[in-house]
Amino acid sequence: MPRRVYINDVSMRDGLQIEPIFVPTERKIALINNISRTGVAKIETTSFTSPKAIPALRDAEDVMKGIERAPGVQYVVLVPNMRGAERALACDVDEINLVMSASETHNLANLRMTRSQSMRELARIIAHAGGRVATNVSISTCFGCPMEGEVDPQEVLRLGDFFADHGASGISLADTTGMANPAQVLQLCSGLAQRWPDMALTLHFHNTRGMGLANVMAGLSTGIVRYDASLAGLGGCPFAPGATGNICTEDLAHMLESMGIDTGIDLDRLIFCAHEMAETVGHDVPGQVMKAGRWNKRFPCPPDLEQVRERALSRDAA
Amino acid sequence: MPRRVYINDVSMRDGLQIEPIFVPTERKIALINNISRTGVAKIETTSFTSPKAIPALRDAEDVMKGIERAPGVQYVVLVPNMRGAERALACDVDEINLVMSASETHNLANLRMTRSQSMRELARIIAHAGGRVATNVSISTCFGCPMEGEVDPQEVLRLGDFFADHGASGISLADTTGMANPAQVLQLCSGLAQRWPDMALTLHFHNTRGMGLANVMAGLSTGIVRYDASLAGLGGCPFAPGATGNICTEDLAHMLESMGIDTGIDLDRLIFCAHEMAETVGHDVPGQVMKAGRWNKRFPCPPDLEQVRERALSRDAA
Repeated sequence: MPRRVYINDVSMRDGLQIEPIFVPTERKIALINNISRTGVAKIETTSFTSPKAIPALRDAEDVMKGIERAPGVQYVVLVPNMRGAERALACDVDEINLVMSASETHNLANLRMTRSQSMRELARIIAHAGGRVATNVSISTCFGCPMEGEVDPQEVLRLGDFFADHGASGISLADTTGMANPAQVLQLCSGLAQRWPDMALTLHFHNTRGMGLANVMAGLSTGIVRYDASLAGLGGCPFAPGATGNICTEDLAHMLESMGIDTGIDLDRLIFCAHEMAETVGHDVPGQVMKAGRWNKRFPCPPDLEQVRERALSRDAA
Repeated sequence: MPRRVYINDVSMRDGLQIEPIFVPTERKIALINNISRTGVAKIETTSFTSPKAIPALRDAEDVMKGIERAPGVQYVVLVPNMRGAERALACDVDEINLVMSASETHNLANLRMTRSQSMRELARIIAHAGGRVATNVSISTCFGCPMEGEVDPQEVLRLGDFFADHGASGISLADTTGMANPAQVLQLCSGLAQRWPDMALTLHFHNTRGMGLANVMAGLSTGIVRYDASLAGLGGCPFAPGATGNICTEDLAHMLESMGIDTGIDLDRLIFCAHEMAETVGHDVPGQVMKAGRWNKRFPCPPDLEQVRERALSRDAA
């Protein structure tokens, strides 16, 4: 097991983008400023997409200009195209997160491009922006496509090799709709850190079918130390209404802390942020630790415990 | 990873005992009869406790006499004392499940006996009933006590050794309030199958803090192949109000099936039973797969996918 794990909180982007409400810009800034103080390694703060496509994140510039940057935290934004990359660069982000899918159908449905076109476009953005910011490529549907079904692992490797060759600084393998299982994670991810030694490697799981943290355990055993997660378990996917969303940031940090793995995170602050996030969206959220408390939380003994013990022992004496 | 895993559904006992409603006996019988047809290895059907202590299960005899026994399924009941054992034997159960805690405080608070007294009492029951039925001992709070905190693994080993010496046919290590983490499971459980070769070894996890299936993965890697779980994720613990309950039977079976591990279970039937259980208790339940569907469920492509593809390719040609 690794000794240090790096968590990227994506609740502000992957979480808020599917919420039906528009969270006021000032509130977003306050939320991000609080997340900045938890010790997470990275925050995906927003998306430089068209305001029509994702109205919930139409204030991307204002958010990025309004937040306080905490030292040691990387501020990442999602960028779908060259126009988005220009907007992100103008806001002085630390990293741009580019996206495409391992499945042709999902790429077409989601991005309206073929995979070949996406590869070309993303390579162009990396060539343009790579000198100035970190460039991460998130590959969706690496563990299965909700429309096509199984995704050939060779396709994931082919895309990863392509972006490694084209100078991406990182790659995220995403289980976009929560289809991955731990055996599959082990199989796909073993050896990837060696295959792509110059790219930071991140896993992005959803808890759609309850396997999220089990998949993290499998990922950890392959030596991968970077994970996306979302506060309070926000997020989700249009293909699985009613299902839970991304793996939950504070539940992940809690599991790692209970295992003695360092995340750099102040868990109490993170749980506070999860409550803030739940209040912001105004509905039930999947996070567990925010409801149950830490594993080592102690509860009071029954007040009559000593009498119970005495009565029990007196039965022995009788 | 093991090739075959055996699931014991405890929803009828561990789940229903904390529900505020009394489920009518006929309904219980119908639920159990349906669970019997799913292919689970074992069903914990009820508890032969005092009707005052657990009024929800006050119809234990009627339930056991009313159900149809499916070949290949073991019918287990929880038994707190000799009186309960006699009642269970009169109902021709396959196994009695005896309980005590690894922590003295929890044992006193829960059973009103010291651990020494419980050990003596359970050994007496095993001696009395062991020739006629299988005798399993469930040790609560093996991975931590909500009142005392950490539990010394040596205490768990001492209790297991004691019951192995006294002829128990099985032992369950229970994470009663969901405090276990995967590193701890690995540490406590490695080598136990070798230490207690004559006892069937079961792990009993709760998903209180979201780590339930991750803990199963750790358990599997130690070679343990028997797991308790509860349909729809019913169950829970008085120490963590609002938290989820036992690990969810159908989510567990689903994870194992997606990994290619045989459980003998018909997942569709199991999901049907989970919905029946949710209707019975009449509130939201933690089960995920019953909401999201299987990992390999396919969703329709957008109807305009071909036009999207043509428009995309025409941009290349231009």
